[in-house]
Amino acid sequence: MKIASIIGSSRAEGNTELLANEVLKDIKHQKVYLKDLSIQPIEDLRHTKEGFQLIDDDYDQIVKVFMENDVIIFATPIYWYTMSGLMKNMIDRLSQAIRDERYPQFKERIKTVEAIVIAVGGDEPRIKGLPLIQQFRYTFDFLNMNFSTYILGEANKPGDILNDSQALSQAQFLNKSLAAQLN
Amino acid sequence: MKIASIIGSSRAEGNTELLANEVLKDIKHQKVYLKDLSIQPIEDLRHTKEGFQLIDDDYDQIVKVFMENDVIIFATPIYWYTMSGLMKNMIDRLSQAIRDERYPQFKERIKTVEAIVIAVGGDEPRIKGLPLIQQFRYTFDFLNMNFSTYILGEANKPGDILNDSQALSQAQFLNKSLAAQLN
Amino acid sequence: MKIASIIGSSRAEGNTELLANEVLKDIKHQKVYLKDLSIQPIEDLRHTKEGFQLIDDDYDQIVKVFMENDVIIFATPIYWYTMSGLMKNMIDRLSQAIRDERYPQFKERIKTVEAIVIAVGGDEPRIKGLPLIQQFRYTFDFLNMNFSTYILGEANKPGDILNDSQALSQAQFLNKSLAAQLN
Amino acid sequence: MKIASIIGSSRAEGNTELLANEVLKDIKHQKVYLKDLSIQPIEDLRHTKEGFQLIDDDYDQIVKVFMENDVIIFATPIYWYTMSGLMKNMIDRLSQAIRDERYPQFKERIKTVEAIVIAVGGDEPRIKGLPLIQQFRYTFDFLNMNFSTYILGEANKPGDILNDSQALSQAQFLNKSLAAQLN
Repeated sequence: MKIASIIGSSRAEGNTELLANEVLKDIKHQKVYLKDLSIQPIEDLRHTKEGFQLIDDDYDQIVKVFMENDVIIFATPIYWYTMSGLMKNMIDRLSQAIRDERYPQFKERIKTVEAIVIAVGGDEPRIKGLPLIQQFRYTFDFLNMNFSTYILGEANKPGDILNDSQALSQAQFLNKSLAAQLN
Repeated sequence: MKIASIIGSSRAEGNTELLANEVLKDIKHQKVYLKDLSIQPIEDLRHTKEGFQLIDDDYDQIVKVFMENDVIIFATPIYWYTMSGLMKNMIDRLSQAIRDERYPQFKERIKTVEAIVIAVGGDEPRIKGLPLIQQFRYTFDFLNMNFSTYILGEANKPGDILNDSQALSQAQFLNKSLAAQLN
Repeated sequence: MKIASIIGSSRAEGNTELLANEVLKDIKHQKVYLKDLSIQPIEDLRHTKEGFQLIDDDYDQIVKVFMENDVIIFATPIYWYTMSGLMKNMIDRLSQAIRDERYPQFKERIKTVEAIVIAVGGDEPRIKGLPLIQQFRYTFDFLNMNFSTYILGEANKPGDILNDSQALSQAQFLNKSLAAQLN
Repeated sequence: MKIASIIGSSRAEGNTELLANEVLKDIKHQKVYLKDLSIQPIEDLRHTKEGFQLIDDDYDQIVKVFMENDVIIFATPIYWYTMSGLMKNMIDRLSQAIRDERYPQFKERIKTVEAIVIAVGGDEPRIKGLPLIQQFRYTFDFLNMNFSTYILGEANKPGDILNDSQALSQAQFLNKSLAAQLN
């Protein structure tokens, strides 16, 4: 079982990443920082004669993450009650990836991927983050991916998440589950 | 009363824009296409010593739209059950704008703005678009903006929205309300 | 096409009923007042050896409404951000009805029913009523019923709904659609 | 600190109660079974000249629970994606209780109550139970009660909840928090 985390924060070592670290403690995994990749916003060309055009950016690295892992952790700060723009642009481009002739197996392959969401925000994320969870669910349903679980953490200032004992407890539980699946 | 619409589509004359056109028929307004502006994703520097740094892109045009209008229509296609990445990046940067020393009145000024949301999607938007509406609500609440109403339209192929008689009926109702407010 | 409305208000001529009346203006239909029926809360006996027991109350009238109509309008006041207890008890007992050996065709029959929801509340129903709509959707999905549309109206004092021009406009639109389906 | 749990199940020793038991393990508390109380559905008389009339049922016991405890656990099975009809009728009658002249301090008193929700369902409660959580939140907001946390558990057959290790882990965490608050 191969595990990856995709970090949607705009800064390194943010609260979201710290919480993802707890989930992945002592677990071998690949980590992808969206802030370090160049990913163009989608241009919706589904209904043009030519269809989507090849984009010269780093999205192929994302496709690889989806193709080569069995569990993907989508770790995003909550900006304005939903995922970061960085994470959104990455998700939007899935519309292109599932139609990309260079990856004919992509759509079938990702049906076997287990999705986990970690989202951290400062304004009552356990309530106001729920629409975000519902949207991820609709998205994973559309892609036939299995949305196994999610953790909503609360933090404002850098490092704050380490004081959210409820989120940490959930992260430790998930860490043990993943470790058990690996063995 | 001054009215603007901010169009979050990646293509011109999309269904979202067509529905916004119905709402704004025969009403003088400013129209802003996000696809034609360069807007960087936010970098969260709230907690650094230096704070946010001046970004050399087109966001000042967005600030102007918020400063100079009384009604703003946020018109976004529904991509993966939430707003487009273009719209999200624009919203994310509000975190910087409300702290921008060049616009000390920004935060106070936008409290007087009436927000309207128009969102068009292909997969049961009147149900699966509801989390998006809840997120806009939380956002406008945070900014103390008045979220007066929203329309969810259904469309897949170009022009489809003109067959959504329910959304068109709501657009006509809103058009009359706005026209009456103007007189 | 036969149409029924089920009114979940505790008082007659309430705002919810008034809005349903607009939807059903000049349309032949059956109207059922839950307040005039005796409906016991469900007792969950799914997992007992004997299963559900025959209840001596008025629920058979509800079963008949589901069996004999093609469109059912669920009209409920919004009490504490969800349906009234009267409506909830009626819905809860569906768990028994779909297992009732006296109605072997019930489960199949209701798959052909089109469901419409009308809900009226006093505290920002167009936002705070959205979770209720999502719950109705999950319910109709489970029952394989078609949830065609919904209207959320705002009213506090008796008769207030007649001032909600937006809800009235939506009601008139739906009225025309239903009338057109009938012809 | 005094703690009570209000059990909204229709049967004894149901999964919801079992999960509440985990939360309250070795913690002194009062337990109220709604199934053993007679509680009439609300009749909305807010706008009549006479107002609400005294109802001769067991609701005074509920009022006492709200008046005498500092933490109240609302434990409800998820029936049709929301609370049980038993729980809903109890909640509905709060509209009368906050206006009951026999309890002039009720409205002020409950502002000091901490609310916890435990809900157990069989159909993906961690996603499809989210609208229920949002409704409880709106309700507690209206009443100015503090909604401190919630647990969503999954169970179908009697006893199933004891296999939901994620919910049990959250229950143990909450149990420790409550025990710590008590000391």
